[in-house]
Amino acid sequence: MSSTYGKNYCISIFGESHAAAIGVKIEGVPAGARIDADVLQAFLERRAPGRDAFSTARREPDMPEFLCGIKDGIATGAPIAAIIRNSDTRSKDYGNLANVPRPGHADYPAEVKFGGYQDRAGGGHFSGRLTAPLCIAGGIALQLLAREGVSISARPIRIGGETDGEKMKAAIAAARAEGDSVGGVIEAEVRGLPAGVGDPMFDGMENRMAQAVFGIPAVKGMEFGEGFAAAELKGSENNDPYGIVDGKVAPITNHAGGILGGMSTGAPIVFRVAFKPTPSIGKEQDSVDLSSGTPTKLVVKGRHDPCVVLRAVPCVEAAAAIAVYDALLERKKEI
Amino acid sequence: MSSTYGKNYCISIFGESHAAAIGVKIEGVPAGARIDADVLQAFLERRAPGRDAFSTARREPDMPEFLCGIKDGIATGAPIAAIIRNSDTRSKDYGNLANVPRPGHADYPAEVKFGGYQDRAGGGHFSGRLTAPLCIAGGIALQLLAREGVSISARPIRIGGETDGEKMKAAIAAARAEGDSVGGVIEAEVRGLPAGVGDPMFDGMENRMAQAVFGIPAVKGMEFGEGFAAAELKGSENNDPYGIVDGKVAPITNHAGGILGGMSTGAPIVFRVAFKPTPSIGKEQDSVDLSSGTPTKLVVKGRHDPCVVLRAVPCVEAAAAIAVYDALLERKKEI
Amino acid sequence: MSSTYGKNYCISIFGESHAAAIGVKIEGVPAGARIDADVLQAFLERRAPGRDAFSTARREPDMPEFLCGIKDGIATGAPIAAIIRNSDTRSKDYGNLANVPRPGHADYPAEVKFGGYQDRAGGGHFSGRLTAPLCIAGGIALQLLAREGVSISARPIRIGGETDGEKMKAAIAAARAEGDSVGGVIEAEVRGLPAGVGDPMFDGMENRMAQAVFGIPAVKGMEFGEGFAAAELKGSENNDPYGIVDGKVAPITNHAGGILGGMSTGAPIVFRVAFKPTPSIGKEQDSVDLSSGTPTKLVVKGRHDPCVVLRAVPCVEAAAAIAVYDALLERKKEI
Amino acid sequence: MSSTYGKNYCISIFGESHAAAIGVKIEGVPAGARIDADVLQAFLERRAPGRDAFSTARREPDMPEFLCGIKDGIATGAPIAAIIRNSDTRSKDYGNLANVPRPGHADYPAEVKFGGYQDRAGGGHFSGRLTAPLCIAGGIALQLLAREGVSISARPIRIGGETDGEKMKAAIAAARAEGDSVGGVIEAEVRGLPAGVGDPMFDGMENRMAQAVFGIPAVKGMEFGEGFAAAELKGSENNDPYGIVDGKVAPITNHAGGILGGMSTGAPIVFRVAFKPTPSIGKEQDSVDLSSGTPTKLVVKGRHDPCVVLRAVPCVEAAAAIAVYDALLERKKEI
Repeated sequence: MSSTYGKNYCISIFGESHAAAIGVKIEGVPAGARIDADVLQAFLERRAPGRDAFSTARREPDMPEFLCGIKDGIATGAPIAAIIRNSDTRSKDYGNLANVPRPGHADYPAEVKFGGYQDRAGGGHFSGRLTAPLCIAGGIALQLLAREGVSISARPIRIGGETDGEKMKAAIAAARAEGDSVGGVIEAEVRGLPAGVGDPMFDGMENRMAQAVFGIPAVKGMEFGEGFAAAELKGSENNDPYGIVDGKVAPITNHAGGILGGMSTGAPIVFRVAFKPTPSIGKEQDSVDLSSGTPTKLVVKGRHDPCVVLRAVPCVEAAAAIAVYDALLERKKEI
Repeated sequence: MSSTYGKNYCISIFGESHAAAIGVKIEGVPAGARIDADVLQAFLERRAPGRDAFSTARREPDMPEFLCGIKDGIATGAPIAAIIRNSDTRSKDYGNLANVPRPGHADYPAEVKFGGYQDRAGGGHFSGRLTAPLCIAGGIALQLLAREGVSISARPIRIGGETDGEKMKAAIAAARAEGDSVGGVIEAEVRGLPAGVGDPMFDGMENRMAQAVFGIPAVKGMEFGEGFAAAELKGSENNDPYGIVDGKVAPITNHAGGILGGMSTGAPIVFRVAFKPTPSIGKEQDSVDLSSGTPTKLVVKGRHDPCVVLRAVPCVEAAAAIAVYDALLERKKEI
Repeated sequence: MSSTYGKNYCISIFGESHAAAIGVKIEGVPAGARIDADVLQAFLERRAPGRDAFSTARREPDMPEFLCGIKDGIATGAPIAAIIRNSDTRSKDYGNLANVPRPGHADYPAEVKFGGYQDRAGGGHFSGRLTAPLCIAGGIALQLLAREGVSISARPIRIGGETDGEKMKAAIAAARAEGDSVGGVIEAEVRGLPAGVGDPMFDGMENRMAQAVFGIPAVKGMEFGEGFAAAELKGSENNDPYGIVDGKVAPITNHAGGILGGMSTGAPIVFRVAFKPTPSIGKEQDSVDLSSGTPTKLVVKGRHDPCVVLRAVPCVEAAAAIAVYDALLERKKEI
Repeated sequence: MSSTYGKNYCISIFGESHAAAIGVKIEGVPAGARIDADVLQAFLERRAPGRDAFSTARREPDMPEFLCGIKDGIATGAPIAAIIRNSDTRSKDYGNLANVPRPGHADYPAEVKFGGYQDRAGGGHFSGRLTAPLCIAGGIALQLLAREGVSISARPIRIGGETDGEKMKAAIAAARAEGDSVGGVIEAEVRGLPAGVGDPMFDGMENRMAQAVFGIPAVKGMEFGEGFAAAELKGSENNDPYGIVDGKVAPITNHAGGILGGMSTGAPIVFRVAFKPTPSIGKEQDSVDLSSGTPTKLVVKGRHDPCVVLRAVPCVEAAAAIAVYDALLERKKEI
């Protein structure tokens, strides 16, 4: 199965970039929970395209319509469904791509998998646009987590090789000017999660969060705590000793990134996510015309982000929130 | 739920380090499939402790007993179950740890999660020993994949900061001499997987493989293709152009590590896994006596690996095999 | 989780009777499959209210809008989502029920479960109206099954104690005249399913079909083959001997209703479903005002079916189709 | 997937009648829960064969060995695994059945499904013997439910057409004397379950319990409350009015069998299960030799129950307990 996540906070995403709509079904929101529509909308706007000079020019309000499960701002306990209409779709921009897969995109494996029946326009179900319903579900999870004292925040720490904010922007602008693109790294923290959340082996916090976060297009790596750098440390350097902090047992360093044995330690969960440069570039590329099987040159027209990292920040928060809230509900069964 | 993986090739692991046995139930092996016991045993021995000077001295045959599902070497189609008896358990070595969580281990969050009822001896269900049933399931998956033309191989590429084989061994020996430990990085490849395997969003190849691989203790990071390095590249550098290779459409470079949009491209799936240094070290560490709530010094006795990376190589192959075979079975429904 | 069915043909239903819409997400429709909209609509109309003198007067077109997953009548391989707007909702009819649970309805346990936050109007998520998205998913499954040579048909065999068609109608009319209601029994057959479909123990054909069919409101019993009557037979009477039929091995009687050991035998799957009389009646009933905790008399106004059995016939076909197609996809992994 | 049940109290059964062992893995037992081994053993003995003159002469202690997850009688929170060795297997009794499927058994569809690779001896994974691990999991669930104030009890209400206890025994004895068998009906009650347990549509109490109970071999029908008889009633007869009972709101009759809208009403859940006569009979039957495709006469030798209903009573309690405890854990997430 696909486009579905979670056993307790269950989200099921649907839609294609140029279909009538995209949307999400959500289960696991407790009856009686108030969902603040303004807070949610503000969260969604952080992801929306066309917000600033650095993003694609496709401009959509991305206002979700809630079809059921919320009445007067309060969850009824029934499944929630929300959709976003695809109002601004210029399919013709993609016409010349019909038989020529774009390098770095899902086009070619999708062609094989779906036998050519997939909706090629705009990337179909593989479009980055599908992160909008992810953010609806994640934005609601963030509100629910906040009531449990858990917060999640992410920020870009590298873009185009730069770590300074202004230089990041310059790198994006330079890539745009060249018809090229840049990638980056987002770091995120989950704060306030009590110790003991997460399950052994395949349902540990790392497993759960990785399964969710790799659902964001362009993610190619994920690490927790010291991550790959831990491979260079000695045990005596990487282990987090325990002490008494604010009267409670706690690790006094956090090389583990808040997770041991798949379970939260009570320290912040710290993780980093690597994004490849967005594959949609204006430069000419080599590809193959699948209808004739002959090599061809491809120039992708249309509107493209030179960097998805900024818009991906709320997506990372959303994906993490979904995973963490699902784990927290799992924990409730044990108590 | 925990210790369970897969929707098609379903494995369910049980056991604790010092309980009567550890084991695994496996579903999804096709009736009539021949399982080569010698090949499986040779695979398991790559993981077994006590094989060489670099591993823990705990020496166990780790011979699985197959309880059902295989008759005369042929899968019957019924669930397979295999167990390994825990014959060599020195619980007393762990006696002084009863109330003092070891830094870097699962002890403390497990204490919180299970309210002190977990089996502390040897790490209980969180022991690295539980990778033995993982390797049983993975070893069988590798045999099944081989018949589909798919192979998986892994190797250490960094240990203790070294990339050369002899220097890696020296780094391990030095760590052992100091009562310390070192981590490392394993790189693996999946070859022969056709294009179009893997599903959108949360069931992409990266998601599936990450959910499995993070089930190996000490894994703190995972990346595919260029991974974190992709964040430093431009789209024009990272995109893999398509061409005609051996008469077929194929990406002519493989920065993507064989995965686009969560689906295999037909190129090898390449990934790297970061292992932290094993937390069991001989050096004195700070911890807290949970029964009294007072800080204390901890010296962990017993037998410990100064480096789990070498033994983790088959575990990475096993975890990947489970994920890949599950995805391949999913694909069969579509064809 | 709730309102979700299947591991291969996965349906996820959402909506409330008086919310903006009801709908369904469907996964598992093969890319390239043609969905005949006219055939589907004709199927949905068999379930729709207001079709004849025997059904509730609520009249809605119940035309689904397909949001994604189908393009030009062809499945794209992406999840399918369809919604039906709730256009004709007279919430005020239900005003006096706000605090007084209707006997035989889900009102009271829903009140306890959801703490009063559930949408009471029209039964909310428990409304029989939610069988419309069930029939969308089932109608599509029926089309897919037809291409595999499998057909499913159901018919009422008892209504209000009558077995003759005209007498059934008379019983319904009499119940309506009295402000009362009647139940009945539907019998259904699955034809063309090859032997060997269905899985051991909890995923046998009976288990799968029961899990789906009990999802139709008002179902209180289900039996296969001889069913409860088998309890009165001897083994020598109930066993189905094997013989050669049309040159192939087959059971030459079908007391088993086409299922042995949870697996299809190749004979038609025959089952019967018991429907209770619809709980919405015009007669005065005893209930309790939950706000004051005092007994009260209740007269339910609004529009009600005196018998849901006729409209439930396509629902039974739909639920069975979903279960059978899911099992058939499971089988594909084995071959 | 097969032989697996539950999302919260998860049981996974393995084994074949003549393999080395049968067993079960259980997840969802809370850490710290005491499991009374004597109570469990007494429960298992109610199911064990060879207990009285009416059961098969195969006599096995059926003592489970707990491999992990329980230490000193206390659940550790890790998965529980238990196995029962198959000590008394006379495979040669089944030799002549190798190619001739027994009418009424799973033999023929299993032959098709598993291509002849299934373990035919004793019914393999389809053997009634697999109800032993079901009863281990169910017996533990019963103990856990008891601490929540929930009890489950079942009893035969019809055997061989008789409703009186002595006449039931006489019917069994008569069937045995004839080399024949009889079926029957078991009625069961779940008491003490609070209102509001169970989930909409496919995860209602009926759906959940049916999925579990149809996992017992020979079950061909299941009904709740009035069940099939409800189809003959009018709404005014079948509806359960609400009143104040012991100071609390409650239905004052229980035609619904304690379930409305899939949710418990607080009244006892009452259900009945139809068992076909056991297919193993001593009489000559018609079958087909699958190796030659020619009709043949079959006489089944070996030891057979003339009636499984008595031994099935604890199985029904076990299956119901698993379903109810799983639903109760689901409910915990909501509170």
